Parts: sequence; structure tokens; C-alpha cells
Amino acid sequence: MKIDILTLFPKMFAGPFDESIIKRAQEKNLVQVQVHDLRNWGKDERKTVDDRPYGGGPGMVLMVEPIDLALKNFKKKNTKVILLSAKGKTYNQQKAQELSKEKHLILICGHYEDVDQRVVDNLIDEEISIGNFVLTGGEIPAMVIVDSVVRLLPKVLGAEEGLNEESHSKPGYIEYPQYTRPPIYKGWNVPEVLLKGNHAEIEKWRIEQSNKRTKEKRPDLLRGI
Amino acid sequence: MKIDILTLFPKMFAGPFDESIIKRAQEKNLVQVQVHDLRNWGKDERKTVDDRPYGGGPGMVLMVEPIDLALKNFKKKNTKVILLSAKGKTYNQQKAQELSKEKHLILICGHYEDVDQRVVDNLIDEEISIGNFVLTGGEIPAMVIVDSVVRLLPKVLGAEEGLNEESHSKPGYIEYPQYTRPPIYKGWNVPEVLLKGNHAEIEKWRIEQSNKRTKEKRPDLLRGI
Repeated sequence: MKIDILTLFPKMFAGPFDESIIKRAQEKNLVQVQVHDLRNWGKDERKTVDDRPYGGGPGMVLMVEPIDLALKNFKKKNTKVILLSAKGKTYNQQKAQELSKEKHLILICGHYEDVDQRVVDNLIDEEISIGNFVLTGGEIPAMVIVDSVVRLLPKVLGAEEGLNEESHSKPGYIEYPQYTRPPIYKGWNVPEVLLKGNHAEIEKWRIEQSNKRTKEKRPDLLRGI
Repeated sequence: MKIDILTLFPKMFAGPFDESIIKRAQEKNLVQVQVHDLRNWGKDERKTVDDRPYGGGPGMVLMVEPIDLALKNFKKKNTKVILLSAKGKTYNQQKAQELSKEKHLILICGHYEDVDQRVVDNLIDEEISIGNFVLTGGEIPAMVIVDSVVRLLPKVLGAEEGLNEESHSKPGYIEYPQYTRPPIYKGWNVPEVLLKGNHAEIEKWRIEQSNKRTKEKRPDLLRGI
């Protein structure tokens, strides 16, 4: 898979993509992630990419032209173009699965007050928001997309990393609690069932805990969102 | 405000926190963000911080002791301790507002398969998830918290940056579409009402657009989530 990211803040991606799973996946050539500075396609000698909104109001709006010109460089026949924006549909694990099957993604990071609506209407395939909260720009949301999609690519995670057992990968329930050594720390005990090694009992306890915690903390998951 | 972040991947935060609004807020002393390597509190000479789960299963679990020892260094009377984890309650703008009123946050980034449940039961105030998707660790979610909270702090955003007008800050509706120059690009026009400069008409159009788009794209917001 190839992922191109268009942003006004390319340096933001240095740390997140040079560590952990995304780094390993790139080293193994399982994914190629490239970050591009939108200002390369800015207008005039000052490389302008934004201007004031028509109709008035505070803030600046990202212009359509620099984004159109940038896309001309990267968009291929099988490319899926995504704008990260607070106005988009909410991202979830099903969408991550879907995107992980694509050959090429372009992620456009919105910034400032907004992006010219003609970008949304004419140049992209999808507008995605990562949740009901306001962020400075689309950069951190783009990191969310890359991280969640790359870990689903074949061969990126080892069997040891438990791809199929994690919270949200089985829709409807959050995972049971986990414990590791020591068995007692400051008087806080690991549940006895986990120490006894009876696998049927352990399985039963884990299912009970998963049900209980989902009901308590995320009843919305049980309603099938 | 002071924010301490506990993580196994401190380098991930280099880019995101050295750019844009978080950088400016730190330079103006409006917030102090410090990232700490959890391995500093690892056990034995190998600085171990994780071990296999009791009861079996794939992956590794972050141990309670390093987190407890790290918290001893940073936790004060008014500290709010948050674990970023797929099992937590879903983050939203209301929670961002709430956290922006705190004096001191400690954000613990979960990683590997999970974190020892005794951390959740005894050492933290809150467990937060940023959405229904699986990520490699709590680092990107911690960036989401920092970005969304810091921009709400007094004096961080200028009036120009439109703090009160953005999507999600008014619960219930997403923002109207924005346009900027040029008025025509490749035959794509800016809506005429925005070019005419009649403020009452513009206001009416914007409200209509906001209602229409919310109904189409985010009916869940209208149900009052």
C-alpha cells in the first residue's frame, strides 16, 4: 500500500511515523508513507494556500487550487482521496478494514477554519472525522488513519501481537481485563482464576468480564453502533 | 496548565508538539507539556516494563509497578490521571472542555496488548478512548487530548481563529460550507449569495446549509449524542 499525505505541517509527522509499527512496516516495504508540504503548490511567490472566507467570518479557508494541483501529481486510477475534517463521517474499525484493502490513499489534512467546499464537492472521495471533538487540524487524524490501517495490512503484525483479540475488532464488546506479574502488588491481587491455570474457567471468567464491562462502560456498543 | 505524558515511545511526540498551536502555547508559557519514557521506571537492569498475561493469550501486558513508580514522581494533589485505552469511555468536546479546566494532567499511553488492570482499578482517575477503532498504542490518542485541550486554554487561540464557530463546539450541528477565492475555478462556482454581501441572506443560507448537512451526514448529532 502507498499513502500520500498532504499537509501544511509536514514536520508533525516526523516522530509518529519514525517509531513503532509504522516504522517497521515501512522498513519491510509493506507500506510506503510519504508526507508532502501543500505549500509546494501554493499560489504566487509567497506560496499562499489560504484566504479569507466569502461571506465573512473569522479565520482562513484553504484554497481549492493548491489542493487540485497537488492531487494532479499523486492521484492515479485506483487512488482513494480522503479529506480529514470535523464535518466528515465518524471513523470506525469497519472503515479502517475497508481502507486497508485499498492500493493507494491520499490523505488531505484540513487546517485553519476550513477547506473550500469545492474540494469536498469535486476532488475527494470521502470526508472523515475521527470523533466529536475539535482539533487544530487534520494532521493527528491522518496519523490515526495511518496507524489503524497499517496495522491491518498483511504481515505487519506478528501472530504474537494478537490482531484478532483486541477491543473493537469484535464489534459489540470491549475486551476482558488483563494482568501480569507480580501476582500481588501493594496488596492488589490478580484474580485467582487466572493464576490457577484451568483454561475452561479462565475462558468463562473472561467472557463474563467482557460482558460486564461493556454494559457498564460502553452500552452504546451493545446497541449495535 | 501542565501536562505530563508517560509513554514507551517518547520520540513519537517530537513532531506533533514542535509545530503549530501546541508549540506557540508552550512558547507563551500557557502550557507546559513534558514527555517521559516509562522505561525509566522499568524493573531490573533491562528496564523491563511488560510481561505475558496471566491466564494465557497473545501479546504482552504493561506492568503495574513501573506506572506506579512513575506516578509517584509526578502526581500532585490536584492531578488528574488519565489512561488512554481502547476500553475507555469515548472522548468528546464536552470532555475536552472539562479537562481544559484542570491544573495538571498526566496521560498514560497504553501499548502492547493491554495494561495491567490494577493500574485502572487503583492508579488512575479516568480511562479514555478516542473512538471505535484499534490503534497501536495510546500515543496518538494522547496527542488528540493535548491538541483539543490546549486550544481551549485562555489566550491560546486568537479571536481570528474562530474558537466559537467550529464544528462540534455547538453541540447538535456541523458547520456550514466555506469558500474562498477565486469565485470560479474550473467552472466550479462559489454560491452567489456569498458574493453579494447581504449579511442577513448569508446568515440565513449558512443556517440552512448547516441543518441540511447535519441531517445528511451526522444524524446521530441531532439525536443528541
